[in-house]
Amino acid sequence: MAYTYEYARGALTVDCVVFGLDEDDLKVLLIQRDIAPYEGCWALPGGFVHVDESVDEAARRELREETGVDNVFLEQLYTFGAVERDPRERVVTIAYYALVNLGDHPVAADTDARNASWFPVYDVPDLAFDHDAILDMAYERLRNKIRYQPIGFELLPKKFTLTQIQRLYEKILDTTLDKRNLRKKILKLDVLEALDEVETDVAHRAARLYRFDPEKYLQQCKAGMGFDL
Amino acid sequence: MAYTYEYARGALTVDCVVFGLDEDDLKVLLIQRDIAPYEGCWALPGGFVHVDESVDEAARRELREETGVDNVFLEQLYTFGAVERDPRERVVTIAYYALVNLGDHPVAADTDARNASWFPVYDVPDLAFDHDAILDMAYERLRNKIRYQPIGFELLPKKFTLTQIQRLYEKILDTTLDKRNLRKKILKLDVLEALDEVETDVAHRAARLYRFDPEKYLQQCKAGMGFDL
Repeated sequence: MAYTYEYARGALTVDCVVFGLDEDDLKVLLIQRDIAPYEGCWALPGGFVHVDESVDEAARRELREETGVDNVFLEQLYTFGAVERDPRERVVTIAYYALVNLGDHPVAADTDARNASWFPVYDVPDLAFDHDAILDMAYERLRNKIRYQPIGFELLPKKFTLTQIQRLYEKILDTTLDKRNLRKKILKLDVLEALDEVETDVAHRAARLYRFDPEKYLQQCKAGMGFDL
Repeated sequence: MAYTYEYARGALTVDCVVFGLDEDDLKVLLIQRDIAPYEGCWALPGGFVHVDESVDEAARRELREETGVDNVFLEQLYTFGAVERDPRERVVTIAYYALVNLGDHPVAADTDARNASWFPVYDVPDLAFDHDAILDMAYERLRNKIRYQPIGFELLPKKFTLTQIQRLYEKILDTTLDKRNLRKKILKLDVLEALDEVETDVAHRAARLYRFDPEKYLQQCKAGMGFDL
């Protein structure tokens, strides 16, 4: 089967920057390529957009097929369309970024023969194609966006402590934050529900658990308050 | 000449939302289509991406060819890739938005046979394809972005009065702003150069002219101050 067109057509792909937060670091999920070009090189998970699926669907499908990750926060980042970005032929790629709770999505690559692994964002090998630039832009978007949208909670378990929020912001912004100030700010945003539960299996005094409340957030947005950390 | 591929390939286009500010309103530049589908319908200027040009180049070229607008602020907005967005065949479009100083770019469509016209953003006819959704997103981006990046000045003449800045923000945000407060805020940002010139050809007392100073802005950014109105 072959498809013929009057004008030359480039190929269209999607690539996903998948962020996860574990005990140690903010991490990004990479795939080791098993075909040329860049054979053996690490790259972002991704692949061709089919003509009968939307670009969003393509991103979700590739993520699922290549890493086993499904049902996660996924947002379009930017479209990279330099002429020579793929040495084989003209390929334009629509980049996405995803936020994953590593508790729910422990390790990937069980659905695919290829090697997949989590790398700390500050210790990533040279990536194939222009994927370094894509990763840089995704990380910058994440750093900016967690300050004015409550997307950071996507990286935490459903129930979390205020200390976990602090770690989240410190890891992503790569800085240390004043504990009392941050807690005051977060609670003042009034988007969390304080649960009648405390954390379990801890050596220190068990801290109270919270849950992000999307309805409270919606009310804050309607009241023009939004989210600003 | 024909081009053949193993898999079906969609077409790739760019579309541009061009904003301009005149005495009356914030306006958007539209083109009247002279071919099917949507013949006679208004649409965003745009067209196919060539395989030998980057997507940014394609956006600049289409803008130039279709509207005569060149050398303006142009930024990628979002890629629209629903399967059925074009009734003819699969077309994914990369949307851009441009900001134009109408003094430098009075009216368009002199380079092209097609009808082009500026419409107030709040009084736009039903557009072809999904261009209504693209325009909505571009307008939202503009409204958000002028608050934290000094892009609004792109819509003004090189030299402008503080009253013109106020009009700019009021027109884009569709609200009235307190004159003293806004002036204080703008001057405190320290990104403007006060000129030894006043406006000419005015009936009222001539106001001082200012110029946006990119170097001052860069210094503010380095100092972590940025731009926040």
